[in-house]
Amino acid sequence: LAALSARGLTGLPEIAAGDDLAALIVASLGEEPLRDGQVVAIAHKAVSKAEGAVVALAEVRPTARARELAVAHPDGGEGRDPRAVQVVLDQSAEILRAERGVLICRTHHGFVCANAGVDASNTSTEAGVETLVTLPLDPDASARRIRARLRELTAADGRAPAAPAVLISDSFGRAWRHGQVDVALGLAGIQPLDDWRGRTDAGGLELRATWLAVADAAAATADLARAKDSREPVVILDGLERFVTVEDGPGAVALLRPLEEDMFR
Amino acid sequence: LAALSARGLTGLPEIAAGDDLAALIVASLGEEPLRDGQVVAIAHKAVSKAEGAVVALAEVRPTARARELAVAHPDGGEGRDPRAVQVVLDQSAEILRAERGVLICRTHHGFVCANAGVDASNTSTEAGVETLVTLPLDPDASARRIRARLRELTAADGRAPAAPAVLISDSFGRAWRHGQVDVALGLAGIQPLDDWRGRTDAGGLELRATWLAVADAAAATADLARAKDSREPVVILDGLERFVTVEDGPGAVALLRPLEEDMFR
Repeated sequence: LAALSARGLTGLPEIAAGDDLAALIVASLGEEPLRDGQVVAIAHKAVSKAEGAVVALAEVRPTARARELAVAHPDGGEGRDPRAVQVVLDQSAEILRAERGVLICRTHHGFVCANAGVDASNTSTEAGVETLVTLPLDPDASARRIRARLRELTAADGRAPAAPAVLISDSFGRAWRHGQVDVALGLAGIQPLDDWRGRTDAGGLELRATWLAVADAAAATADLARAKDSREPVVILDGLERFVTVEDGPGAVALLRPLEEDMFR
Repeated sequence: LAALSARGLTGLPEIAAGDDLAALIVASLGEEPLRDGQVVAIAHKAVSKAEGAVVALAEVRPTARARELAVAHPDGGEGRDPRAVQVVLDQSAEILRAERGVLICRTHHGFVCANAGVDASNTSTEAGVETLVTLPLDPDASARRIRARLRELTAADGRAPAAPAVLISDSFGRAWRHGQVDVALGLAGIQPLDDWRGRTDAGGLELRATWLAVADAAAATADLARAKDSREPVVILDGLERFVTVEDGPGAVALLRPLEEDMFR
């Protein structure tokens, strides 16, 4: 088994709406071209910003429910901005819990996470304009688009076009454990899950519950290679060739439990 | 930032009760000695087997409750062995849910996972004896013991003693996502969490909810470097020096949300 490795891509500029993220990635790679079988892992914020999935707080009109939640669930003791709560509500299909200053939401995509993935950090490029970054509208489609563009750009370079997989991730909290780990929001060309259920192991015994969330483990690996205070939204993963596919595949949506299997509704 | 890398250790024998796991690891490393700052990630089953945390089904007397659960929650259509259910009950402080063939348990340690982490796979060394592997009794203590022994053995080699961190992991399912990822059960010498809450990012903005579960991400990385059908319980991680500490630290128990913060009781 080849070793697994992950390295953060340095030198990417701050991403703004309309940016060609794939082109910026290719430019930052320098002399080391992308290869088939690699995974390009991207923190969702870079994708959201390039796609303009950003909301200026000044333009938000909070509803009565947002005002009510802002008062009932202050963030760390401070009053919460009802406009920020409204942005979270707009991104949510359902609020599962509202406790201890955090709204646990099911987003319109089906992700269950704190504050519907709406984030204030790392966002301001225009000084003085308070903005929030939301999750990409359709992260699997974003991943497919970036993958196609990476292939196009590497072909235009005069090289054989490379079709590395693309993984878009965000840091999610967990129900019973402290802290956050990155999970896959959008995928193109990487298997989301590796199903060993019912197969036998090296000793001939049945592996009863082995159903690896490969893409989520890859997202966690990428985030671990990234320093939170540096601007390294992109991490290149090597050693996952066995999970990289020519087809874009089912996407990260395949990682979501259907509502009727949610044990905690 | 140095690249993160993970490689599975080949050539470890099948582990049996009483084995000196640290000695087997050092022997398998061959010419490449352990270094300070590395993380030795071990699938819990190897630790459990070395510690004799194994139950022979033939010696289990199921209670009425185990018989009842075995009938009410068959595993994949087949009848469940009430003795296996009894082992799960013995390992659990609380059964949170019993649905679709899976018991979601809070173990005596405080881990929330399917079937209390009791596992049948990769276990049989004595042909014909049906055994189950349980989680180690105190995985943080196991990690500290293995770390101390690794230091002792590398010193005995005539080299400067290396104090790599030790991480014991298991694959856990998730509440709202399919599949499993590895999480940390026991830790010695690696920071469980990296707390950036309240600090500012490179752009001077406050990072509002950045609380990285470093040890869980490291566990997921190690598992991704491991092929499920090969016998590679041990993975060596490089590039995590910034999270490795001289002290053994608080252990994986620091990753558990206290009961009163569990939003899903």
